[in-house]
Amino acid sequence: MDVKLFKDVARNYKSIFFDSYGVLRNYQGTLPGVREMFEFLAKENISYFVLTNDASRSPEQLAENFSSKGIPEITADRIISSGMIAKDYLGNKVPSGTIVYLGTEKAGNYIRTDGVEIISINDFTLEQTEKVSALVLLDDEGFDWNTDLSKAINLLREKNVPVVVASTDLTYPVSKSNLAIAIGSIANLLEPLSEKVFVRFGKPDSIIFNHAYEYALAENPLLSKRDILMVGDTLKTDILGGNKFGIDTCLVLTGNIQAKNAQLFIAATGITPNFICESVTT
Amino acid sequence: MDVKLFKDVARNYKSIFFDSYGVLRNYQGTLPGVREMFEFLAKENISYFVLTNDASRSPEQLAENFSSKGIPEITADRIISSGMIAKDYLGNKVPSGTIVYLGTEKAGNYIRTDGVEIISINDFTLEQTEKVSALVLLDDEGFDWNTDLSKAINLLREKNVPVVVASTDLTYPVSKSNLAIAIGSIANLLEPLSEKVFVRFGKPDSIIFNHAYEYALAENPLLSKRDILMVGDTLKTDILGGNKFGIDTCLVLTGNIQAKNAQLFIAATGITPNFICESVTT
Amino acid sequence: MDVKLFKDVARNYKSIFFDSYGVLRNYQGTLPGVREMFEFLAKENISYFVLTNDASRSPEQLAENFSSKGIPEITADRIISSGMIAKDYLGNKVPSGTIVYLGTEKAGNYIRTDGVEIISINDFTLEQTEKVSALVLLDDEGFDWNTDLSKAINLLREKNVPVVVASTDLTYPVSKSNLAIAIGSIANLLEPLSEKVFVRFGKPDSIIFNHAYEYALAENPLLSKRDILMVGDTLKTDILGGNKFGIDTCLVLTGNIQAKNAQLFIAATGITPNFICESVTT
Amino acid sequence: MDVKLFKDVARNYKSIFFDSYGVLRNYQGTLPGVREMFEFLAKENISYFVLTNDASRSPEQLAENFSSKGIPEITADRIISSGMIAKDYLGNKVPSGTIVYLGTEKAGNYIRTDGVEIISINDFTLEQTEKVSALVLLDDEGFDWNTDLSKAINLLREKNVPVVVASTDLTYPVSKSNLAIAIGSIANLLEPLSEKVFVRFGKPDSIIFNHAYEYALAENPLLSKRDILMVGDTLKTDILGGNKFGIDTCLVLTGNIQAKNAQLFIAATGITPNFICESVTT
Repeated sequence: MDVKLFKDVARNYKSIFFDSYGVLRNYQGTLPGVREMFEFLAKENISYFVLTNDASRSPEQLAENFSSKGIPEITADRIISSGMIAKDYLGNKVPSGTIVYLGTEKAGNYIRTDGVEIISINDFTLEQTEKVSALVLLDDEGFDWNTDLSKAINLLREKNVPVVVASTDLTYPVSKSNLAIAIGSIANLLEPLSEKVFVRFGKPDSIIFNHAYEYALAENPLLSKRDILMVGDTLKTDILGGNKFGIDTCLVLTGNIQAKNAQLFIAATGITPNFICESVTT
Repeated sequence: MDVKLFKDVARNYKSIFFDSYGVLRNYQGTLPGVREMFEFLAKENISYFVLTNDASRSPEQLAENFSSKGIPEITADRIISSGMIAKDYLGNKVPSGTIVYLGTEKAGNYIRTDGVEIISINDFTLEQTEKVSALVLLDDEGFDWNTDLSKAINLLREKNVPVVVASTDLTYPVSKSNLAIAIGSIANLLEPLSEKVFVRFGKPDSIIFNHAYEYALAENPLLSKRDILMVGDTLKTDILGGNKFGIDTCLVLTGNIQAKNAQLFIAATGITPNFICESVTT
Repeated sequence: MDVKLFKDVARNYKSIFFDSYGVLRNYQGTLPGVREMFEFLAKENISYFVLTNDASRSPEQLAENFSSKGIPEITADRIISSGMIAKDYLGNKVPSGTIVYLGTEKAGNYIRTDGVEIISINDFTLEQTEKVSALVLLDDEGFDWNTDLSKAINLLREKNVPVVVASTDLTYPVSKSNLAIAIGSIANLLEPLSEKVFVRFGKPDSIIFNHAYEYALAENPLLSKRDILMVGDTLKTDILGGNKFGIDTCLVLTGNIQAKNAQLFIAATGITPNFICESVTT
Repeated sequence: MDVKLFKDVARNYKSIFFDSYGVLRNYQGTLPGVREMFEFLAKENISYFVLTNDASRSPEQLAENFSSKGIPEITADRIISSGMIAKDYLGNKVPSGTIVYLGTEKAGNYIRTDGVEIISINDFTLEQTEKVSALVLLDDEGFDWNTDLSKAINLLREKNVPVVVASTDLTYPVSKSNLAIAIGSIANLLEPLSEKVFVRFGKPDSIIFNHAYEYALAENPLLSKRDILMVGDTLKTDILGGNKFGIDTCLVLTGNIQAKNAQLFIAATGITPNFICESVTT
């Protein structure tokens, strides 16, 4: 598969869905040239949205972060996070009672709604089990894994409540060569011990794509799926999810997959993007 | 959880999504009282759609089958099958070349589109591997498992093509006490041997729900998700899928789960419907 | 299956292999009547060994602990722990270099041998990666899960070293109703992220049974497998392991499985002991 | 890791355990030079045993097959097959009743013992379920996968009997580039549908290694594990199993792994042999 220039690919679409990490930025910050890319999209009248497996904060907070890192173009109304999908789900299915969460206080505050009490697993004690109506896994920070993961298991063994996992990511990069374990791996640890079926949100699941599609349709009601391109650095989330949702997909080589391994990984998984580009900045 | 009368539950919704097998019919045929239930829906002005993990034939053929079994109300335009979703996907992603399929001739014919050649795995020989552009798992009948499953593996080892699984069901009932192994289990056998990631369609994945939602919106543009009820007999497909999609769910006890085990299975899996009803005919 | 008196079962064997936790003791300490049971074995001239999925300390330290809890009969030479098997393996396969371990200092000291450096994951820094020759998972205590589990993954991504898991237990009981997550679950979290195959020791794997059998043969060279009974409270470790090793098995109801659920669990798993007894003290 | 000459490696051991397929022979027959290798072993006074994941026939029949292919040195008393281990297990655990098997008639005859009736799944009807005392998976041939696999599931749903899988192999080679699906994969298909825990025999499980060790000790009571070398072509069975059992291991490149990929596969799995040799004939 030839490596194409991103601009040559992008100009054939009316809307572009971007993954964030590994595509627009990395552990060092925003990729040089990203602003020029957004200027190009504006000039070409191509809309854009960011689809991110992130439940650590609100879209507003995510947008502030983009802005502070030099991309003010990504406003809150252009961000669809797996945290938003989880918050919607909880609003629908758990309208009252007490939700226990794994994650930072910022993550917990975001899912707070009227009529629902929010408690961090860190502050929760098993004496409070009776009033719990859901357990939500938001982020890998904000609690003590040594003690709080066992606490979560004991909660689930004592009371049958829905468990929502607000991101499917298993790891995330923290430097050029090092990873950290993400909340999706914590979910994989807890689920078999709880003997429950956890409800997971995030790419490649199509709900987040559908949400983005609804945003895009609201702006341009004539948009069809053929007009949309998903751009990501990860085959098993971005590319598989885009393929399943029925939109074209573009793999960029600025994140999880390096140029020399791209063909190998595509062949090894069978997950094939429509295009490969070096970077969104080319 | 109290067992409610289906009519009392249904009258609070504007559209109802039904699973087929175990809900409207079983191994003995259509459940007595189903036609009266559809008359009730018509009188109450409640729309309905059937969401089925079935890729063995076209919606028209499925509708004929419903009609021949005494439910002419289920016309082709009211059926959303996982086979439809798979056909859409192939139309998008595999517009040309040769598709090899596992399934009956009827199933293969349904996914046929202009410009694409269709070959049953039964007729396929490995000499033809070079021209293959996709492998599709449609149905458990129409081929020889002893020889054709190994043939499928050898095809996938020689050429990297997308693999589409058009139904996630693992088994299906063939009599009061006996099951048959379904194509979803065949997929689970082949996937680890192929070292590829198979793309699967069918409940609980939300794509089929979204498709049905689009049908429902086309009839009634003011419909919201809160107006829709998913009715099914299986927790891990119908109820989990409806819950994830954000619509209310109702478990009926005419299929996979008997009345005496319902609470146990709900507690054991943590997948909780909004309602339990004896049958759609009550 | 009838519930039998343990003495009636035991007197037909020449050697008895006991699991420890849930059989001889529980979260409250040694079960009342255990000493009388050992007196009965002595009188009947039946030998005994304890097979335990434990790598938190040496057999000598385990024996001291039994003694301090009122069972001096269980001397170090009667204990076969999964930690011993792991230590043997490391002695064979990793005779030099540096072994990084997850566990308490006591656990680390036990696997120390001449010519090998031992470092806790807690003290380890990734700059030391080059000199590492193995990673060993011993115990769930003694390190910070929030940071050290990611450190272990990054070590394994940078250097290809064998990973040894010295206990397969997924959880362990800490009170009447509460569990803690054990090192076997930590292994299940790390293994897919590392893309390595971990080497696991502990019941139901037959190596620990074989080790115990060799101990028993050393005392009585005429012993055959038909003369041995494995007694445990867990179907998937004690009973499955004993069955596979080809010795008779006895499930006791003082641990993981309560009397009312025994038949259900046996039917649900298909793992069938030869006998069920209320307790080893009956 | 350097590639060594097999003779240079072998002469440091007193007993050699060989895998069969991919080591002594392949799809074309016996490897040229194998007889000379056995002459070398005889001259050097090194004993040998063949450890094979095969339950398709008796050791005598396997030995006849070796002899007809030009290796009369491999007599029945030098072969330890996973079928032998399964037969032992059944003799211990299922001394009476009816055993239903998946496999050829030859495979079924081998596990036949006095007092036990043997029925092929092909001849079995579900009306006979009441009298069944075990289900055994021996070989992929001799039955109709389309119908008999569902029959096996329905048997297991109606009666709780032990299920024994007499080989863990997932596939086997049938030509230079093609595989066939082996009985181990059939077991992986059936186990989750049955909700039972299947008992599996075969490398890398240590029981087969222990059996071979007992044979070797019977000839030379002074043999220790340090005197034994396991030679195989497959990392996940031969090399992992040998490593776990505590004996040295040697990977040969005449089977599953080609020279150019050996280091890659070793690094990718973390399963490291002590030696790599081109072939046992060098």
